[in-house]
Amino acid sequence: MIRFYNGKVLYFTRSGPVVADDEVHVDGERIVYAGPRKASEGSCFDREIDLNGDLLMPGFKNAHTHSPMNFLRSLADDRPLDLWLRESCWPNEAKLDDEAVYNITRLSILEYLSSGTTAVFDMYNHSEAFSRACADSGFRAVICSAMNDFDRDPADIERDYLKLNGFGAGLVSYRLGIHAEYTTGLERLKYMVSLAEKYREPCWTHLCETKGEVEGCLSRYGMTPPQFLDSLGFFRFGGGGYHCVWMSDGDIDLFAKKNLHAVTCPSSNLKLSSGIAPVAAMLRAGISVAIGTDSAASNNALDMFREMYLVSTLQKYLENDPTACPAADVLKMACVSGARCMGLDDCDGIAAGKKADLTVMDLHRPNMRPLNNLPVNLVYAGSKENVRLTMVNGRVLYEDSRFFIGEEAESIYEKAEKFMREKVRS
Amino acid sequence: MIRFYNGKVLYFTRSGPVVADDEVHVDGERIVYAGPRKASEGSCFDREIDLNGDLLMPGFKNAHTHSPMNFLRSLADDRPLDLWLRESCWPNEAKLDDEAVYNITRLSILEYLSSGTTAVFDMYNHSEAFSRACADSGFRAVICSAMNDFDRDPADIERDYLKLNGFGAGLVSYRLGIHAEYTTGLERLKYMVSLAEKYREPCWTHLCETKGEVEGCLSRYGMTPPQFLDSLGFFRFGGGGYHCVWMSDGDIDLFAKKNLHAVTCPSSNLKLSSGIAPVAAMLRAGISVAIGTDSAASNNALDMFREMYLVSTLQKYLENDPTACPAADVLKMACVSGARCMGLDDCDGIAAGKKADLTVMDLHRPNMRPLNNLPVNLVYAGSKENVRLTMVNGRVLYEDSRFFIGEEAESIYEKAEKFMREKVRS
Repeated sequence: MIRFYNGKVLYFTRSGPVVADDEVHVDGERIVYAGPRKASEGSCFDREIDLNGDLLMPGFKNAHTHSPMNFLRSLADDRPLDLWLRESCWPNEAKLDDEAVYNITRLSILEYLSSGTTAVFDMYNHSEAFSRACADSGFRAVICSAMNDFDRDPADIERDYLKLNGFGAGLVSYRLGIHAEYTTGLERLKYMVSLAEKYREPCWTHLCETKGEVEGCLSRYGMTPPQFLDSLGFFRFGGGGYHCVWMSDGDIDLFAKKNLHAVTCPSSNLKLSSGIAPVAAMLRAGISVAIGTDSAASNNALDMFREMYLVSTLQKYLENDPTACPAADVLKMACVSGARCMGLDDCDGIAAGKKADLTVMDLHRPNMRPLNNLPVNLVYAGSKENVRLTMVNGRVLYEDSRFFIGEEAESIYEKAEKFMREKVRS
Repeated sequence: MIRFYNGKVLYFTRSGPVVADDEVHVDGERIVYAGPRKASEGSCFDREIDLNGDLLMPGFKNAHTHSPMNFLRSLADDRPLDLWLRESCWPNEAKLDDEAVYNITRLSILEYLSSGTTAVFDMYNHSEAFSRACADSGFRAVICSAMNDFDRDPADIERDYLKLNGFGAGLVSYRLGIHAEYTTGLERLKYMVSLAEKYREPCWTHLCETKGEVEGCLSRYGMTPPQFLDSLGFFRFGGGGYHCVWMSDGDIDLFAKKNLHAVTCPSSNLKLSSGIAPVAAMLRAGISVAIGTDSAASNNALDMFREMYLVSTLQKYLENDPTACPAADVLKMACVSGARCMGLDDCDGIAAGKKADLTVMDLHRPNMRPLNNLPVNLVYAGSKENVRLTMVNGRVLYEDSRFFIGEEAESIYEKAEKFMREKVRS
């Protein structure tokens, strides 16, 4: 059993985040106590972690990413989108085998842990190698099948769904989805809808990311992507979309009516000139909005602090209103809404019975001082320098800048560099 | 003499940033050698710093900030601008005395150092307390007089200019400027112009920060703020503006023709819903653009990594062009253009004879891997976790998360918290 004491604990309540001078006990994978200081019970703890006034909080959930694309970070930036895709992304992604996906996913996990992220919603192929990388690291992930017309055999999806759901003693789960409407023809779309029907599963997709995507769907089907997919029964059991930048009022109504989730990826949308998602409007409509980094190939970091800052400040710009998207709402999006959209309802906060997916924020760094308002500080001033510890499923995987995922960081770096030397740069 | 060896060195050349496997020697305040590895000369070094493959680069220059306002961080966010100013900023700023300004400036210096910043262009009053805080910390600063109609006796400006230029054995210098056109009446404006004439000095001001500011100047004087100030001779000896969000084509032409400097503060402009500065357009016109954080009261962190990311990606959004404001240009703005606009021409890069204002970037963090392109990595993926060491004027002031400014960080934090308890929150 592990005890966190002598610090602050962040809870999410109906009226917003609340910070209390509490302590938290973790037994195995779960939190077993969260509340006021308890009289010490002597030897019942395997480890007692002195928070020294620091803040214990639920880990961030990165609700949209492509971990195996991390090797493309800073390889070809500041280029037109089509050149970037055709000359840098696609030819190099074709060089990925299971071993490379495993190692590069491990590299991404280091970065998630160092930014206080305890779970990711990932979309890529090589799903089994990805799942092994997460399970071997002790890291939590939800994979979404990226069905499209090019690189997935539809039969693989059902096989992966059955095999990888619950993989790694429950660390990995699997969700159904397509890459996007514009990469998936009607036949495969209908197959995906039939799978979702068969298993009564929510369905996910890249959605309304660019203006061109929406225009293409309108010209093909006379409907926006959300409306077209809905007409096929794609969202019958829920799910939602990644990006959601070019959402019409009708699309927002549809998402609200069907309780669909939107995942916003502000840094990627800015850097690729896609636009700014109408996050404040979606929240006003009652839609649950989560936050993702997208891949380091496009944005170029897997850093939830940067995304939180952007979610809020871009809405203040877009709405011409400095009160838009206040910090407390954004913090909830990053921790709670992320968990909910991924189906990780038992990883969404600190309470007895919840999974121990936690992070400790170092408040002894100058960017946190003075300690005027902790939730506001986290969203507007927080950075990776504040991440002192990250725990997933009850295990400490990151502490004091060191990683504990079964392999030294330097060894993982070297494997990634070797892949670059031998396969990408050669 | 200090030697940096076994790593990489970043130079700015006419064709962009270049990284070489060089070494650098520092003697006293200055760099005395930068070039290929030299045969060791035994005992001539007081300290040899093994870079271990990390990157030595010129420090960032934060070209617009208000260090003593740091105590307002996260005190009153997500509010309309006028409420924030009237209820949070102004009444609390009135409580600042010299002692508080000294301590809060020291708190800000900790944050500058932890983000690799080696000099700031600051605008505030209590100039002598601010200067002592910088000098006592070994930190470099340029103060700009913030003349306005409310809180400065114009006679103080000339006294401070003569006293504080060169203060702290040259660490502090003093520039002339007004707070803004809209806070400074014609009489004081003309006095500032006469001072600039007398000392042949450049002149600075907050400029075109909000749409309302420009509209007000147009209605008062029938000219935009840059055109109006120029008509008075304000820019006769150069200088420029902070923010420069609402610049007309004519304003951009004026800046280009007169070789004026623009300082962009993207995070503050977003968070206060001021807008996005036309940085790419200003660069196309040949204007030198530097980068500032503005104060933590508005943005809420003193972090040049965040600003660099925003400068580039907001221009990609604004121009609907993912090639806008490439990383190499932004890195130069943060290091070189910042130094130039502050009059710190001998702090703008790594070469024998330049001041030793340097920072070491830790490349052994997951966000830097793989090492595909270092300048791109710094701008799009870099963060404070990468800052391993910061040196100002030949002295190491920050290393391995510890500060060396003559007082423990915890003591500075406690002084700031005490001010909040006794003066602000009481």
